[in-house]
Amino acid sequence: MLEISNLFSKDAREVKPSPIREILKVISQPNIISLAGGIPNPETFPKKEDILKTIDENYDKNWLQYGKTPGVDELREKIGKEFGKRKEEVMIFSGSQQALYISSLAFIEKGEAIVTESPTYLAALQAFRTRKPRIIGVEMEEDGINVDSLEGILRKTKIKFLYTIPNFQNPSGITMSLEKRKRLIELAEEYKFLIIEDDPYGKLRYSGKDIPSIRKLDDENYTLYLGTFSKTFAPGTRIGYVVGNEKALRTFDRIKQPIDLCTETFGQYLILSYFDRIPENIEKTKKLYKKKRDIMLDSLEDYMPEGISWTKPDGGMFIWVKTNVDTERMFKYAIKNGVAYVPGKTFYPNEDDVNHLRLNFTFVEDEKIKEGIRRLARTIKEFK
Amino acid sequence: MLEISNLFSKDAREVKPSPIREILKVISQPNIISLAGGIPNPETFPKKEDILKTIDENYDKNWLQYGKTPGVDELREKIGKEFGKRKEEVMIFSGSQQALYISSLAFIEKGEAIVTESPTYLAALQAFRTRKPRIIGVEMEEDGINVDSLEGILRKTKIKFLYTIPNFQNPSGITMSLEKRKRLIELAEEYKFLIIEDDPYGKLRYSGKDIPSIRKLDDENYTLYLGTFSKTFAPGTRIGYVVGNEKALRTFDRIKQPIDLCTETFGQYLILSYFDRIPENIEKTKKLYKKKRDIMLDSLEDYMPEGISWTKPDGGMFIWVKTNVDTERMFKYAIKNGVAYVPGKTFYPNEDDVNHLRLNFTFVEDEKIKEGIRRLARTIKEFK
Repeated sequence: MLEISNLFSKDAREVKPSPIREILKVISQPNIISLAGGIPNPETFPKKEDILKTIDENYDKNWLQYGKTPGVDELREKIGKEFGKRKEEVMIFSGSQQALYISSLAFIEKGEAIVTESPTYLAALQAFRTRKPRIIGVEMEEDGINVDSLEGILRKTKIKFLYTIPNFQNPSGITMSLEKRKRLIELAEEYKFLIIEDDPYGKLRYSGKDIPSIRKLDDENYTLYLGTFSKTFAPGTRIGYVVGNEKALRTFDRIKQPIDLCTETFGQYLILSYFDRIPENIEKTKKLYKKKRDIMLDSLEDYMPEGISWTKPDGGMFIWVKTNVDTERMFKYAIKNGVAYVPGKTFYPNEDDVNHLRLNFTFVEDEKIKEGIRRLARTIKEFK
Repeated sequence: MLEISNLFSKDAREVKPSPIREILKVISQPNIISLAGGIPNPETFPKKEDILKTIDENYDKNWLQYGKTPGVDELREKIGKEFGKRKEEVMIFSGSQQALYISSLAFIEKGEAIVTESPTYLAALQAFRTRKPRIIGVEMEEDGINVDSLEGILRKTKIKFLYTIPNFQNPSGITMSLEKRKRLIELAEEYKFLIIEDDPYGKLRYSGKDIPSIRKLDDENYTLYLGTFSKTFAPGTRIGYVVGNEKALRTFDRIKQPIDLCTETFGQYLILSYFDRIPENIEKTKKLYKKKRDIMLDSLEDYMPEGISWTKPDGGMFIWVKTNVDTERMFKYAIKNGVAYVPGKTFYPNEDDVNHLRLNFTFVEDEKIKEGIRRLARTIKEFK
C-alpha cells in the first residue's frame, strides 16, 4: 500500500481548505437560515425556455469544440466595446477566480509585497497566497480604502499590485468614491504598480449613482479590470474576463495554456448569444435584490441591540456587521439558534479583527431574512 | 505609462507558448490540409436536437448555480461505477489538463524526478514543467514503455510519479501490453511511486482487443486515472476527471479552490443527463475514425518513399511517422506544399529526436487525408 502523503509536495501538505467552503458544508440543515453564502439567487438566472431558445437559434458545432486560450473572439469583442477596447485587450477566464490565480502567477514572486483592502475577498487572498507574497492590508473607510495609509506604505515599500473591489465590496459592501479612484491611478503612476480592479457586483446598484470604473478613468493603462457573468447571467458557466494591458494578457494566455488549455466554449457561446438580453436580466435582478437588501437593513434596525453597527451598501450582495463579540466563537451558538453567517476574521489579511461578520441578503426568501436577523440579534444578546 | 514587463514574475518572463498552439495559428489558411491538430471531428458531437432535448428534460436551477469543488455528486457516482469506486474516489476537473496541472502542484517539488514516456503528450510536459522537475523520459517500444530501462532508473533515482498514456498514446499511437501494465504496478509497489494514467482515447479502439486500464488492475491504489469526455462527448464543456486515492483527491480539492472554485456546473449536468447515451456516441465515433485511420494507413503505404516507417495504432487519433529528415526544418516546405503536421521534437522530454512527426487522422475529410499524405510524401522526397 502507498502512503500517498509521503509523495505530496510541500505546498500540498500546507494547503488549507477555504473556511467559507467548510462553513457551507456545516449549514446545509434545513432548519438553519443561512446568511453565510455568497451565491446569487437562482430566480435571477435566465429561464429554461430562454436558454433553450438561445441555443436553438444560435448553436453551431463550434459550441462543443475546443476554443482558443484567450477565449471566443466575438465575446471578447462584445465585452471590449463597453470599455472602448479591442478584443486583444480582453481575455476570457474560467471564472474571475482563475483570473485572480493567473494574476498571482504572473506578478508575484515569493516575499514580494502586494496591497489589498482590509477586509477583502477571501478567495482572492487564497489565490494570492499560493505565491507566498507579503500581503499588506489597508483599512477601509466609508468611501473606500484609506489612500493616505496607502501612500505611507508606498513611500516605504515597493509593491507589485493593489487589489481592490471598488463597488459594493465583498465583504464590506463599501463603494469607493470617484476622488479615491482618481487618486489611486495617480499613485499607480507615481509608484509604478498595477491596479487589479475586481468588479463582480458593479452592475448591481440599488441606490445612489454609478461611479465610473477605475479602468475607465485610467488613461495610462495601470488597471486590469476583472469582470464576470456570474452575477448578471449565472455562475454555472464560470465565465470571467479581464480587460486591460495587451502585453499582460499575452502573458496570461501563455500561463493559462498548461492550466486548462481553454475555458469551456459552450458557456462562452451561450453568453455571447444571450449578451444583448443581459441588461434585462440585470434589471430583474436589481429589483429582487433591492427589496431583500431593504428588508435586511430594516430588520437590523428593528432587532439589533445597542452598540452594533453595520454598513448600508448601495448594491451588491453583502452587509458587514460590527459587533462587540468574537464572531468566530459565537458561530456555534448562532447555529444552535438556527442562523448562519461568515465570521469576519478570515477576510482580514492579518486576521487581526474578530468582531465583524458578513451577511448575505441575496439568497434566502424575504420572510426568512427577517427571521434570520431576529435570531442573529438574539444570539448576539445572549452571547455577550 | 507603465512598462508592465517590469512587474512580471520570473515564471511569467520565462513562460513559453505551446509550439502546437503556435502551429495551429499558422495553418488556418484554407489551401492547407492540416494533419497537425489533435481535435475531435465535430461530426462525432451530440446533435443539436439531442442537446436541446437533454436540457429540456433534465434542466433545473442547479445547472446554472455554483457547484462543489470536487464536482457534481451524481456525475462522480456515475463515473465511479465503471471502476467500482465510490464518489469520494472520483473528482471532476476543468478538463483533464487541469488534473495534470493540479497533480503537478500536489506532487512535484522543484528538482524532483518524474518519469514520462518519450515521446509523450506535450501539454502534460508543459503542466509538469511549471514545477521545474527533473523529467526523465523512457523510450517507447512497440508494446509500450521500456520497463527494463525504467527499472534501471528506479534503482538509482527516487521518482514521485510515472506519467503514462497506455492506450493509443499521443503522439505515438502505441498501446501498452497487459504484461507491462502489471509490471508497472509491481514496480510502483516496490519503488513507492504513483502512476498517473492518462486515458483520453481508451474507449476509441478500432481493432484488437481491449486491455484493462492500469487503474482496474491496481488493487493497491498506486494509480490516479485521468479521464475526459472530450473525445466521447465533446471538448467544448471541458469536463475531465480523476479516479483514485481518496486522500489525494481531498488535497486536490483544496488545491483547486483558489484556482477556479469549481468546474462549470452546466456542462457537468449536461453530460450527466446524456451519460447513458455516450456509448452510442462512442460507436458512431469509432466507425467514423476507423475509416479515417484506414485511409491514412493505406495512403502512407501508397505514397511514402523507402526508409520511412510509421505506427499502426489500434485506436485513438494519431499516427507517428519516423522519417530520415529534420521534421522541424522541413515544416515550412510542407506548408508550401499545402500540408501541415506537428514536428516530433517537442514531444520528447529532452527534445533529442528530430526525425519524427505526428499525424492526426480524425479531423479532415476522407479525401483530404489521401491528398495530405500525398503532399507530405512529396515534401519528404523533395526535402532529402
